[in-house]
Amino acid sequence: MRMSRYFLPVLKETPREAQIVSHRLMLQAGLIKQASAGIYSWLPMGYKVLERLSRIVHEEQARAGHLAMLMPTIQSADLWRESGRYDAYGDEMLRIKDRGGREMLFTPTAEELVTDIFRSHVSSYKDLPLTLYQIQWKFRDETRPRFGVMRGREFLMKDGYNFDLTAEDALHSYNRHLVTYLRTYERMGLQAIPMRADSGPIGGEDTHEFLVLAETGESEVFYDSEITDLTFGDRDIDFDDKAACAAVLAEFTSRYARTDETHDEAVFAEVPEARRRTARGIEVGQIFYFGTKYSDAMGATVQGPDGKPTAVHMGSHGIGVSRLLGAIIEAHHDGKGIIWPEGVTPFHAGIVNLRQGDAETDAACEDLYAQLRKAGLDPLYDDRDERAGAKFGTMDLIGLPWRITVGPRGLKSGVVELTSRRTGESVEVSPADAVARLVAVYDGI
Amino acid sequence: MRMSRYFLPVLKETPREAQIVSHRLMLQAGLIKQASAGIYSWLPMGYKVLERLSRIVHEEQARAGHLAMLMPTIQSADLWRESGRYDAYGDEMLRIKDRGGREMLFTPTAEELVTDIFRSHVSSYKDLPLTLYQIQWKFRDETRPRFGVMRGREFLMKDGYNFDLTAEDALHSYNRHLVTYLRTYERMGLQAIPMRADSGPIGGEDTHEFLVLAETGESEVFYDSEITDLTFGDRDIDFDDKAACAAVLAEFTSRYARTDETHDEAVFAEVPEARRRTARGIEVGQIFYFGTKYSDAMGATVQGPDGKPTAVHMGSHGIGVSRLLGAIIEAHHDGKGIIWPEGVTPFHAGIVNLRQGDAETDAACEDLYAQLRKAGLDPLYDDRDERAGAKFGTMDLIGLPWRITVGPRGLKSGVVELTSRRTGESVEVSPADAVARLVAVYDGI
Repeated sequence: MRMSRYFLPVLKETPREAQIVSHRLMLQAGLIKQASAGIYSWLPMGYKVLERLSRIVHEEQARAGHLAMLMPTIQSADLWRESGRYDAYGDEMLRIKDRGGREMLFTPTAEELVTDIFRSHVSSYKDLPLTLYQIQWKFRDETRPRFGVMRGREFLMKDGYNFDLTAEDALHSYNRHLVTYLRTYERMGLQAIPMRADSGPIGGEDTHEFLVLAETGESEVFYDSEITDLTFGDRDIDFDDKAACAAVLAEFTSRYARTDETHDEAVFAEVPEARRRTARGIEVGQIFYFGTKYSDAMGATVQGPDGKPTAVHMGSHGIGVSRLLGAIIEAHHDGKGIIWPEGVTPFHAGIVNLRQGDAETDAACEDLYAQLRKAGLDPLYDDRDERAGAKFGTMDLIGLPWRITVGPRGLKSGVVELTSRRTGESVEVSPADAVARLVAVYDGI
Repeated sequence: MRMSRYFLPVLKETPREAQIVSHRLMLQAGLIKQASAGIYSWLPMGYKVLERLSRIVHEEQARAGHLAMLMPTIQSADLWRESGRYDAYGDEMLRIKDRGGREMLFTPTAEELVTDIFRSHVSSYKDLPLTLYQIQWKFRDETRPRFGVMRGREFLMKDGYNFDLTAEDALHSYNRHLVTYLRTYERMGLQAIPMRADSGPIGGEDTHEFLVLAETGESEVFYDSEITDLTFGDRDIDFDDKAACAAVLAEFTSRYARTDETHDEAVFAEVPEARRRTARGIEVGQIFYFGTKYSDAMGATVQGPDGKPTAVHMGSHGIGVSRLLGAIIEAHHDGKGIIWPEGVTPFHAGIVNLRQGDAETDAACEDLYAQLRKAGLDPLYDDRDERAGAKFGTMDLIGLPWRITVGPRGLKSGVVELTSRRTGESVEVSPADAVARLVAVYDGI
């Protein structure tokens, strides 16, 4: 993309409404624009990151055999009455009457609707296990929306639902989700720690929240410092292997890690003092096992191997996709702006032309731009007629992980400058070498 | 994907609520399930097609330099009051009060919000031209939703908005959109004819609707038969070339083609009688030029080259993405089921194992499945323990363009059967040859 043809409305002033750094940077870097309280438009670069995050979520869910689908945002109140949640949900549910006077709502989550789909179409245990998920916009009518997309009213969520014959099978689904979530967050450059949590309005017996440590997190968290040494990495897990998935759960949840909602001072005191940590965390996902709560209420049964109707065991599993943008920026920024992890960056590299209009420099930039695209990369070329300082400032603010600076002086010696946004370190290399290095960096990402 | 692990709830009975073939087939083939009147869940295979259609739309918009973004579904009434449409829109607008009593609505279209984004961020003619678009769910509270996704209440739409300095530039944007739409529909296997149309509640001076001819279309259409001989094909258009885009418009709109709303018997009579056609059509898109209607009302001005504030010229351009599934099926089906065009099929080919459980046949199917995936294709392998007739029936119903039938008899001679869903013709080829032929079919699609 050429900057001259892009819509990147970078703000010069600091937006006054932003109380936390991710909100401020998302506004300043032109990623979002508030439409109403807690409701945002995603400008082209913000939308691009949102799409990258969604793609990572899809890829990791597909790896585990979970099936993507999509449920509508506007749902009938009747279905929510079957579970008892229409009355129980409270004012956070956006309630609507259509022109025929029918009571509808904007979905805050979709246990009822997915259970209705299940009971309409699945009748035998032979069709289990089944996990359906969607990435869809949700609405929760918060009293005090704040912190930008971190606590918005309209937000993008991945919500997945498993249907299993037995509690044991459902717990395997739970573990499988935990594994997919660990991989998902790591690919996004985040360390998200699974912590024992409270089930809230969804209800449930087993539940973990995934928290990213950040000063601006809304939850106080307590954990054994050993847990931050764990990484999932690129393990080749067989998602059908119950023991393998259970071992991952054990590895990542055996150490103390809880939010203030479930914190237990007595248990925490058993952790050696040097390893006890208190910090703040941002919730970026949650997994639940809730047994037959919805299947009992809504009659979601299958014929079991014994021929008898059996209520299915269910769980639901969520990732806050739009909120993740905020969490990633909270975890990856400095005084100059955002520092995107390579896995989620909107563009792979920025090209800064130090002397726009100079024929040789322009040609070198054009060639570099073409070579990067030919190599399958997606560069952003700052081809504006601006001074170098302004171009550097924009690149630092929007946080592309790599910058290639092209100027007449370097070109005389056949080099351009390749700079890491994270470390600030630069190397002078030939244009071809810069392309090769970036190809290597992004290989497999 | 293996059928045994997929969620493909094919219906045996004919759904009574379906009045048209696409609605019936979408329900029978397990693509959608009604959630409420005019509101559907997209089951995995339906969602997959919806995603393929969205991807084609994105690719063709990107080719023209239009920028993807996303606006929220829930918008403030205040913004719609600025244009006067909050009161004018009528009962089709889904109106909502949030917990604070603020008037909101579910977006039926987004001229106001995109104009607000524009006026907040763009102040100079140097930042023009600009076209922003989104693919987002919309809601229109139809009195009588019917025909499945063809006339639903919650529907997925691509809506794009151009901002230009002059009427002439805006008409180039209009022409550019026409070109992208011609390519988009053809890639989806559709002939969509641009017809002079009525502007409706959006308002506008120039507007064309794109109609797919189909017996079940809601509009009566009148056209010169020469128009159905036109194809856009794979022309390499320079979207910056005004004359080239205008020539495409002229080529595709110079012959008589109108809907009942704009039909003029006197003008139609000038078409030679042998070429006069009356038919029915499904509207799958519309382009509008409406000048400064919204920019005047909402103060969207830029500083022109003369230093004076100038209201921008705008247009909006829509494609009914979810409705396209219905239109494609109306245009491509037979008595047995759907016949997906290769460009939009949910899976590239189906593999039917004639003797599930037979070691040699299973191994051949597994190998074929692996080879197709290795070649970058996405096959659906019917690995269920069902009789051949049931497997064939399912494949015909769901309409994958190609089927590979694998049985013990053929394998003895080293062959499998490759069958075209459209023609019904089969050839016996080696498994490797079947893969090679499919790779060739899908090359460049």
